[in-house]
Amino acid sequence: MNNFIYQNPVKIVFGKDQINSLGSLLPKNGKIMVTYGGGSIKQNGIYDSIVKALDGFSYIEFGGIEPNPKYETLMKAVQIGKQENVDFLLAIGGGSVLDGTKFIAAALPIDNDPWDILLGKTTVNTAIPIGTVLTLPATGSEMNGGAVISRISTKEKYAFISPLVMPQFSILDPQVCSSLPHKQIANGIVDTYVHVVEQYITYPVNAMVQDYFAESILKTLIEVAPKVLSENPAYDDFANFMWSATIALNGIIGSGVPQDWATHDIGHELTALHGIDHARTLAIVLPGLLSVMRSTKREKLEQYAYRIWGISAGTSDERIDEAIAKTIAFFESTGIKTRLNDYGVNGTTISVIASRFKSRGTILGENQDINYETVEKILNIRL
Amino acid sequence: MNNFIYQNPVKIVFGKDQINSLGSLLPKNGKIMVTYGGGSIKQNGIYDSIVKALDGFSYIEFGGIEPNPKYETLMKAVQIGKQENVDFLLAIGGGSVLDGTKFIAAALPIDNDPWDILLGKTTVNTAIPIGTVLTLPATGSEMNGGAVISRISTKEKYAFISPLVMPQFSILDPQVCSSLPHKQIANGIVDTYVHVVEQYITYPVNAMVQDYFAESILKTLIEVAPKVLSENPAYDDFANFMWSATIALNGIIGSGVPQDWATHDIGHELTALHGIDHARTLAIVLPGLLSVMRSTKREKLEQYAYRIWGISAGTSDERIDEAIAKTIAFFESTGIKTRLNDYGVNGTTISVIASRFKSRGTILGENQDINYETVEKILNIRL
Repeated sequence: MNNFIYQNPVKIVFGKDQINSLGSLLPKNGKIMVTYGGGSIKQNGIYDSIVKALDGFSYIEFGGIEPNPKYETLMKAVQIGKQENVDFLLAIGGGSVLDGTKFIAAALPIDNDPWDILLGKTTVNTAIPIGTVLTLPATGSEMNGGAVISRISTKEKYAFISPLVMPQFSILDPQVCSSLPHKQIANGIVDTYVHVVEQYITYPVNAMVQDYFAESILKTLIEVAPKVLSENPAYDDFANFMWSATIALNGIIGSGVPQDWATHDIGHELTALHGIDHARTLAIVLPGLLSVMRSTKREKLEQYAYRIWGISAGTSDERIDEAIAKTIAFFESTGIKTRLNDYGVNGTTISVIASRFKSRGTILGENQDINYETVEKILNIRL
Repeated sequence: MNNFIYQNPVKIVFGKDQINSLGSLLPKNGKIMVTYGGGSIKQNGIYDSIVKALDGFSYIEFGGIEPNPKYETLMKAVQIGKQENVDFLLAIGGGSVLDGTKFIAAALPIDNDPWDILLGKTTVNTAIPIGTVLTLPATGSEMNGGAVISRISTKEKYAFISPLVMPQFSILDPQVCSSLPHKQIANGIVDTYVHVVEQYITYPVNAMVQDYFAESILKTLIEVAPKVLSENPAYDDFANFMWSATIALNGIIGSGVPQDWATHDIGHELTALHGIDHARTLAIVLPGLLSVMRSTKREKLEQYAYRIWGISAGTSDERIDEAIAKTIAFFESTGIKTRLNDYGVNGTTISVIASRFKSRGTILGENQDINYETVEKILNIRL
């Protein structure tokens, strides 16, 4: 097991009607900015609950944070936040609203261009405190310090991580899932699944609890997916799905083990260039990555094949191929297509992505051995 | 899944030589009290590392906190701490030292009798901050707000829980395990195993992640026990054991599920009356509890039998009996005896414990259906 430091102070308030405790979690004084997305919370009743809970608090609203939250939009919130002396941010939404709000939190206190945070040129030294009400299980943003932000002008998408933008609290009521479209639930399932795999299928370091925990979440997702995508999911199905998404990326399964976020990094390019849903880019890329990188991931791939899919017969490569095929079939079972062609993307895009990685000098993977040529190979087998 | 609130801000600093980061974790100013136990840290080199790391800090020492830490001893530390204006506590030891230090932390700021905290008559409203260096994996105290304290004068043993006594940081270096006697490692394995079972074998609430996580820790313990008890354990064996003990009781597997701490409550009486090691009392009581309470625990017992021990043949009761037999055999395989007679305890003690519970009106169990008569039944089948 590798050495690690783990600390996650986010207060999770999980369960039915927990939104009722919002008032007791917010700071009594000061100015709150309530952030949200395209307005679906105004249809499903969540907005009304929030407004009710905010009675007596001083707050302003900032709506319109889009999927793959945009720097350009968020900077408007930063400007308003400065004018209004906002000192608490309440994010109502899914990963995009939460990530965008983390960026606002880090950008509000500084005077230089906050895009530098994404470029790693500015360190986050202070941030406005955040609370969240999660409306879409998927990214795990509600219990970590990570955020991914896009910039329209340059078609770029970058991540930053800081413990200072971890929410002070996150309210998770699984009932919110009942108003979600199938597409978003499927995205959430696949996003969570890939988060786990990226912390699990690398090389073995004999971290038994972390491996079993990662497999626990994968097994839960495989069992729960058909239920949450059925006609009448039960409350507990949503609860298991929602808690899986949070715990997949709160640091606990990734502590003390190598990680490989290449699937995300490659996927971000597909979103930046073609606007493909984040989770769908992961479903495209992951099978290619696992196949191309099988020599260095072999032991964990074999473990994954056996412990998750019960595959024990055949040569090592046959077992790995079968495990990858099962993974693809699982993604497709949620209604998510897994090939570039399914999204109208062809070899031209692959060349663009490869040359972007080449010019940036990006090297990915747990062994730092995935260069632009390997990225090209990975994407070519996903055409 | 039940509603829950989960928050655990303890910073875990885990791995080889992490004691070197102690200096950077301690407050630069103020007065530190370093607490420890019987002095084994002076033989194994840990004390020397601590003294080195404390160079430049202002500190005093308080040694001699015994196993099952005593109110009488701890009150001496409280008195000294008040005289010396101690404002940070650094606990070096296992669960007893850590628990004792939590009591000191809660007792230092108050003027009334701190025993009232154990009796539930005084709420902890403030506490001196704590850091820990764990020397014995077992109780999980390094990542929670719980403590168990004994009182010699009354032969009583009670627990208190407060988020205010959660350590600010805990340093976990698995290398410390190599100097531990087999007996203490065996105790740590069994203590951890029972902690998990008490959060797992109750009644099902369809909490899939929590169940799989609990099973993950049990499987890890079963696999790792013979290794850490062998002649030459590897570093990773100790690391897996140590992380299991911490994660078993940091709240993550117990969130959103019913819990049954009756085994602990009954076991505490055996320690209070006969001085039997805490873990050994659990190994005695648990099999009796699972057997007597099988009607309300049936579904989870069957799940435990199948998922942990692979038992699928026979009637429900046969499967449960076999799972309990396997559990006993596992405990005994670590060298721990599991019957009251093994410790020279007879029916007289059972009567004393039953009458204690009767006079206190204690009712235990996840369904609040274990009264003194059931306790008597549980202990009688463990003679």
